[in-house]
Amino acid sequence: MTQLTTPGDDAAVVTPSATPSAESPASPGAKARIDVGEITRLLGGRWWNLRKEARDLALDPRMQKIEGLGHLEHRDRVLEQLKLLTEIGNPHRAFPKHLGGEDEHGASLAVFEELVVSDPSLQIKAGVQWGLFASAILHLGTPEQHDRFLPGALDVSVPGAFAMTERGHGSDVAGVLTTATFDPETDEIVIHTPVEAAQKEYLGNAAAHGEAAVVFAQLIVGGVNHGVHAVYVPIRARGEDGALSLLPGVGSSDDGLKGGLNGIDNGRLWFDHVRVPRTNLLPRYGAISDDGVYSSPIASPGRRFFTMLSTLVQGRVSLTNASTGAARMALAIAVNHANSRHQFTGAGEEEVVLLDYRRHQRRLLPRLARTYALSFLGADLLERFDDVFSGRHDSDEHRQDLETLAAAAKPLASWNALDTVQECREACGGAGYMAENRLTGLHHDFDVYATFEGDNNVLLQLVGKRLLTDHGKEMMKMDVAGTARWVAARAADAALHRTPLRRAAQSIRDSGSKARSAGHLRSADAQRELLEDRVETMVEEITLGLRASRGADDATAFAVFNEHQDQIIAAARAHGELLAWEAFTDALTRVRDNDTRDLLRTVRDLYGLTVIESDLAWFLTNGRMTAQRAKTVTSYVDRLLVRLRPHAQALVDAFAYSPEHLRAPLAGPGEALRHAEAEAYARRQRANGEAPIDEKTLNARLAKRAEATATVE
Amino acid sequence: MTQLTTPGDDAAVVTPSATPSAESPASPGAKARIDVGEITRLLGGRWWNLRKEARDLALDPRMQKIEGLGHLEHRDRVLEQLKLLTEIGNPHRAFPKHLGGEDEHGASLAVFEELVVSDPSLQIKAGVQWGLFASAILHLGTPEQHDRFLPGALDVSVPGAFAMTERGHGSDVAGVLTTATFDPETDEIVIHTPVEAAQKEYLGNAAAHGEAAVVFAQLIVGGVNHGVHAVYVPIRARGEDGALSLLPGVGSSDDGLKGGLNGIDNGRLWFDHVRVPRTNLLPRYGAISDDGVYSSPIASPGRRFFTMLSTLVQGRVSLTNASTGAARMALAIAVNHANSRHQFTGAGEEEVVLLDYRRHQRRLLPRLARTYALSFLGADLLERFDDVFSGRHDSDEHRQDLETLAAAAKPLASWNALDTVQECREACGGAGYMAENRLTGLHHDFDVYATFEGDNNVLLQLVGKRLLTDHGKEMMKMDVAGTARWVAARAADAALHRTPLRRAAQSIRDSGSKARSAGHLRSADAQRELLEDRVETMVEEITLGLRASRGADDATAFAVFNEHQDQIIAAARAHGELLAWEAFTDALTRVRDNDTRDLLRTVRDLYGLTVIESDLAWFLTNGRMTAQRAKTVTSYVDRLLVRLRPHAQALVDAFAYSPEHLRAPLAGPGEALRHAEAEAYARRQRANGEAPIDEKTLNARLAKRAEATATVE
Repeated sequence: MTQLTTPGDDAAVVTPSATPSAESPASPGAKARIDVGEITRLLGGRWWNLRKEARDLALDPRMQKIEGLGHLEHRDRVLEQLKLLTEIGNPHRAFPKHLGGEDEHGASLAVFEELVVSDPSLQIKAGVQWGLFASAILHLGTPEQHDRFLPGALDVSVPGAFAMTERGHGSDVAGVLTTATFDPETDEIVIHTPVEAAQKEYLGNAAAHGEAAVVFAQLIVGGVNHGVHAVYVPIRARGEDGALSLLPGVGSSDDGLKGGLNGIDNGRLWFDHVRVPRTNLLPRYGAISDDGVYSSPIASPGRRFFTMLSTLVQGRVSLTNASTGAARMALAIAVNHANSRHQFTGAGEEEVVLLDYRRHQRRLLPRLARTYALSFLGADLLERFDDVFSGRHDSDEHRQDLETLAAAAKPLASWNALDTVQECREACGGAGYMAENRLTGLHHDFDVYATFEGDNNVLLQLVGKRLLTDHGKEMMKMDVAGTARWVAARAADAALHRTPLRRAAQSIRDSGSKARSAGHLRSADAQRELLEDRVETMVEEITLGLRASRGADDATAFAVFNEHQDQIIAAARAHGELLAWEAFTDALTRVRDNDTRDLLRTVRDLYGLTVIESDLAWFLTNGRMTAQRAKTVTSYVDRLLVRLRPHAQALVDAFAYSPEHLRAPLAGPGEALRHAEAEAYARRQRANGEAPIDEKTLNARLAKRAEATATVE
Repeated sequence: MTQLTTPGDDAAVVTPSATPSAESPASPGAKARIDVGEITRLLGGRWWNLRKEARDLALDPRMQKIEGLGHLEHRDRVLEQLKLLTEIGNPHRAFPKHLGGEDEHGASLAVFEELVVSDPSLQIKAGVQWGLFASAILHLGTPEQHDRFLPGALDVSVPGAFAMTERGHGSDVAGVLTTATFDPETDEIVIHTPVEAAQKEYLGNAAAHGEAAVVFAQLIVGGVNHGVHAVYVPIRARGEDGALSLLPGVGSSDDGLKGGLNGIDNGRLWFDHVRVPRTNLLPRYGAISDDGVYSSPIASPGRRFFTMLSTLVQGRVSLTNASTGAARMALAIAVNHANSRHQFTGAGEEEVVLLDYRRHQRRLLPRLARTYALSFLGADLLERFDDVFSGRHDSDEHRQDLETLAAAAKPLASWNALDTVQECREACGGAGYMAENRLTGLHHDFDVYATFEGDNNVLLQLVGKRLLTDHGKEMMKMDVAGTARWVAARAADAALHRTPLRRAAQSIRDSGSKARSAGHLRSADAQRELLEDRVETMVEEITLGLRASRGADDATAFAVFNEHQDQIIAAARAHGELLAWEAFTDALTRVRDNDTRDLLRTVRDLYGLTVIESDLAWFLTNGRMTAQRAKTVTSYVDRLLVRLRPHAQALVDAFAYSPEHLRAPLAGPGEALRHAEAEAYARRQRANGEAPIDEKTLNARLAKRAEATATVE
């Protein structure tokens, strides 16, 4: 069994074929020398060294998740880990220098993402405290407020809740019902929960640890509702006995046990006319002056709301990369197991190692390729985040692009994590179901990543709308006649795709051998063309379909949009897949070693081809591919599996999780040792003549002897 | 919000459009009168009355799962529930009358399947005790052994383990390494674990409660290995203090925390030359005579092994139906929620109920249709099981068909449970992640159903091989020339599918309107033809592909098989989908009420069409469908969603889980009440003139006034 190593900075060069082990022919037939260290650094991105340090925090037993801890003990442990981080982890990197930070945004998130290796609950608890609570103060507050509120938030002496979601309004933040009413008499803001649906819900730090909250509420000044704004509200204080209790007017309840992430004390908060000074309003996008007048640097309430939310994009960025990290860990565990576990005999008496089965390759390798693609997409996303938040490329357009990218990447990455972790769990059989092997815990914890910080479907719809708007702009530039012509041209084009004409034309191009077609699919240009064309055509079709809503009444317009909702989300997903493919392709240009680049190109091809394969019906029904060429896709994917199989171990070794990071016995040497012991026992028995003879073999011998006897007679 | 009811035996007739509630227009536009009670009885199958009783056992608080209980307490609770079942649940129905049973096999399993409503751990614990441990004694033992071993097994005074799986051999049971060696000197059998890989693993009752085990081991008599046989082995005894301790030579360890099913004490067992009397061998398929001679009623060791395993098919039958039960519960929870939860405004100010969104319909309704199909398939499977085990239709062929059906149904049902529960969890957002709402717990518990009692992929491969063998038989009947002709004919046919000829022919048939094509797809004959043709063609293609292995050496033969492994499993899955479709279609003929039958036919169409849609590329690349017709599939599915949406509530109400069965607050009336409270609050504010004016509205008014002023000036 190949040892798990952390190639990291030492450019470990592995020649798989040169290091076969008796226990596991991890890499039969591999000829290429693969620079595992180079892949590790490529995946790690700009902040790999910091990532490595953060990952190694998990080597400290105090920082490790204990499976099966009761949820109350788990919460306390994670709170202690959070405090420990302030000593050993430098979690303030994103904050201003005068507050002990370094003004480094991308680096800071990179570190948080790696906390998943310790315990996903810790990543989220840190995300609540520094990424949401403290960041809201930083991004929405004044310098005076930074000095007043941030020190406690940063050193965790004031654990804080981020009170946005309500029981009645989850993804629909604009609809929250909590009110923050300015009272000019007392110069205070009154926070109030008018109905049960307005109770703040699912908030980390709300059930037990929180002492303050950033509360999002409809800000009402002089009878005018200025929309959602954030207010800093103390919620608990310590009594003389040191115990925390709720402040007057504040209510709270405990969400109790969850499907996972039980190291977080999620709960509800509600307010009965709780008063805070006017100066607790975080006023960056909406302030109340000393004489009680509301003003905002952004005139449009809608744009103001979205701008305010955009400062919180980092949550989606870090969930994206944390999710892909979970997928990488699961694959490292499952591929190690698949390279050491034998089951059923193949040719002859020898049992076959799991990863030599085609089905097992099909289950793990395309997910490995997708996880590579999403790793590169996530690294790009983080760099763009840093570009915007460092101020290097901070414009409305860059912010919007960043948000759209995050809204596309987070759903793809969180679903990939769930799908990959689950397949890895099943691919490890019963052992995969044991909590000690961490796969089930990863699934339990990451389950909620699909619906928090923006439900995945809602986020993709956002991306889809953005794609349509971009398209709409193009149309808006045209005059009426031009638009009509444009639509007519597109409509004619669509008709062409529906008729066999285009397919017939392609049939001619495709008349060469299957091999030539497969070769064609391997070219990056062909893959890009197919993936780009898919997004563009989907968007065009939706645009045409939505035309029915022009000038229609509200009910009809909604009905027309609703009819296309599924297609809009499908287009957004296709867009995300294209972006991941592009990020992977772009990363290839940065690989120096030729063999390593060839290997990664094969992984990229597997990603591209399996994306195309998964939507093959689209390419066929839209005349983008003949049946003939489509048939080559699957056989070409099979060929890629054969080519990649010898390198599967190197490809997960490059993730650079050591056995101490993974802490999964099933990924350790035990399986190979047990197999070797069983084989040695059988050999010894045979050598000693102690092995019983199989009844079948005996029967065959007896039959032969009887035959011989009969012949003699 | 429509109240959850248990229509059960009273033929509750629901006219959705006549009972709209202010809170939730669960069924807008529905005209048909649906006989929910008839659907309930149809789904419940032959033993619905018994099922209902068993389901109602879960109304007893002592029988309910407590989420978040520590795993040690959970185990004790489930053991108590098991004992309680012997008082209130009649778990001995399948056993002979003279032992207190009723010789009723199907009825007995129907009852066990419903234990999932109490706690999936209880279903599995009951399955271990009565379905595996006691059933192995029943099916493999002698009447004398029944009298000796069954009373303790049945009344749970002797909790027992079913010791089949080993650390080194999971699905590959034939490869187990534990030995059972006959010692003629003492007339004993010596049970031994020669290597670590031979330790028995993941056994329920092994870690703590078990006092005996049925151990599967290689039976060696006089130096001959007769293959895997079962031996009854005591493992623990109570000391004078009443505490259990392991018997000499028996080792055990605790598997500890798992991803779910933590009410079961799974663990390992191993044996160091443990001796039991020869009369503890369960000898139905292999006995040792008083003078130490082995004999078996089945000459072939291979067939003997499979025959022995076939007596245990009930495990797969009950996992199939338990899985589909979990999917039904999840859908009942998620559809109730989707019919009461509002999010985002649609046309005008009103917020839209989740299930009115197309995307939400797409997420839930096809899974609802699949769960219906698998419910009918599971009911058929159970009846066939009863036919065989009651002796009514007990022949080799019927047994083999039963096994093949179970091997196809269990993977489809367990994967459907995981996929459906997960989608329902996500469709319920944050609330779905709360343990109290049971969706995460169902996923945690059912996760392992995909890999135990036969790994799903291994089972499907078994089905695939059976499909090929049937095909092979057809070929075997022919002489050489006939075979050659047969293959040649098929090869020509395959070529025809690859060329545009067949497609061209179909194009002509398809030249009518989209509507006509869609109408065509709605016909049962068209769906059946497509689904049958898919299985047959897949099997033919694999058969042709495997020809390369004829006469080849072992290594080549394995390589050829391995190349087709994925296709073999795909064919098996397609076969299972066809069987589920057929079971559904067959069930329709038993519906008396016309409107109800029409509704269920629409559900069946949704199942059939989404199966076809999910493999549309296959139908296209194999020339079974033109691009033109393929495009109508998705639009027709959309139409079915619109048609079914008003009946979604009735379709889950027909599952007949009361709120007390579901025990999920999110499926209760709370959400609708909170929404109504918020609406009433807003109305009251507007009526009182207390509502603040929105900044946007104010700005518009001010702009208008300014304009008016400007005009006056």
